[in-house]
Amino acid sequence: MEKLFVIKIGGNVVDNPILLNSFLKKFSQIPYKKILVHGGGKVATEMSKQMGLEVKMLEGRRITDEATLKIITMVYGGLINKTIVSKLQSMECNSIGLTGADGNLISSHKRPIKNGIDYGFVGDIEEVNIKLMANLLNADIAPIVAPITYQRDSGQLLNTNADTMASALAIALSNSYHIHLIYCFEKKGVLKDVNDEDSLISKISFEEFQHLKSTGAIADGMIPKLDNAFQSMEKGVQALSIGHAENLEAMVESGSSSCTKLIR
Amino acid sequence: MEKLFVIKIGGNVVDNPILLNSFLKKFSQIPYKKILVHGGGKVATEMSKQMGLEVKMLEGRRITDEATLKIITMVYGGLINKTIVSKLQSMECNSIGLTGADGNLISSHKRPIKNGIDYGFVGDIEEVNIKLMANLLNADIAPIVAPITYQRDSGQLLNTNADTMASALAIALSNSYHIHLIYCFEKKGVLKDVNDEDSLISKISFEEFQHLKSTGAIADGMIPKLDNAFQSMEKGVQALSIGHAENLEAMVESGSSSCTKLIR
Repeated sequence: MEKLFVIKIGGNVVDNPILLNSFLKKFSQIPYKKILVHGGGKVATEMSKQMGLEVKMLEGRRITDEATLKIITMVYGGLINKTIVSKLQSMECNSIGLTGADGNLISSHKRPIKNGIDYGFVGDIEEVNIKLMANLLNADIAPIVAPITYQRDSGQLLNTNADTMASALAIALSNSYHIHLIYCFEKKGVLKDVNDEDSLISKISFEEFQHLKSTGAIADGMIPKLDNAFQSMEKGVQALSIGHAENLEAMVESGSSSCTKLIR
Repeated sequence: MEKLFVIKIGGNVVDNPILLNSFLKKFSQIPYKKILVHGGGKVATEMSKQMGLEVKMLEGRRITDEATLKIITMVYGGLINKTIVSKLQSMECNSIGLTGADGNLISSHKRPIKNGIDYGFVGDIEEVNIKLMANLLNADIAPIVAPITYQRDSGQLLNTNADTMASALAIALSNSYHIHLIYCFEKKGVLKDVNDEDSLISKISFEEFQHLKSTGAIADGMIPKLDNAFQSMEKGVQALSIGHAENLEAMVESGSSSCTKLIR
């Protein structure tokens, strides 16, 4: 099967024009089929504040009311997505920006209220349009995906976690391609001690993850990220790495020891 | 040649959720290949005010500084474009939202300073990617185009007039399709008296347009709209109508007498 790289780039890199530019340069030079999924939390948070909206978070997930959804659609679907696409075009990397609504790429349903918690306009993924992705990839176009899905019957746009979207895309396409899913952020990878970049775990199995979770070494936002990641491996994704955006090239060539690789 | 409808929908319709919904329903039911180009001036103007930015207009064209371009990218490329796409999906009309940067659809160059007037980040169109459009249309996908282009060498996004974009798309595709370009807005068509909907001009030639311009009967925003329109006809567009968004179906079937048709 042909190689396909599904790469997620985190909000802290997206927020920093110099880091973002450097990352996009590396992305544009990947000589394989590729998809980019971007986050962009901070810009939306700042925009919300600028417009006088209160930002509500719960376990690292944003509570999305109507006004927040509007901002997310503007910032993720418009500003960040189009800035990335136009920069990539100037780097001779043909790309198209998409939300889940575009071409019916990723449909979802509004998350039901559970234990009294209402996340608002948040979508849980239902289906990925594999055919659309294959058509774009075969035309040598890199899809650039914003973390927004939609409910097909109502046409309601829904906020969706970017890690989850990258994982869903990777799983759905793993029957057609040899998938390497790479989560890029501003750290070297999974660290035993969050404050010590030298404590990098270069290989981690599901058992070790469970152990490090129980000791509290892995905590906060890294838990859903790794939950997602191990689930992706279980559901067909062939390779998965987590590492620094600056390290993308080495991760793509699987030659990097300074990132975290998931092992079965 | 196969029929292709290039339809431009104006900002006043986009601003009104009821009118927009009704228009999109009609658009979704057009049984031919179709492209939608949308404006959205008012939302961007309101957003600019909300963020404390001064809105500068010159002959109906927005002066686009960096902060304004950011808002335009958010509102046109994100909010409006994705709202339209998701609504169309719920109406069983498969569509993809695009700016000029996406898939290198429409490249432009930054308008040079002329007679001391600097429009800022405004793009004058250079090239339309006909192949991308044909690929989407052949896959039964309706392209939904936001009025943003980009400069290819720098990756700079640029604000571009939606009428001009619709016209450029129509002209570029007129070698491959029989094009009917339709400008939809909130009036019946070109009026002899702007305040009297009964003064509709149902057919207008270039000579009559010049005459009505000289008498002052046609003025303001209608002049660049008709300039664009006649230029499109001259450059290959086969049919061109201007009319009320509510009247779309009749205009598509060319059976409407309550719109303005351009004649050679």
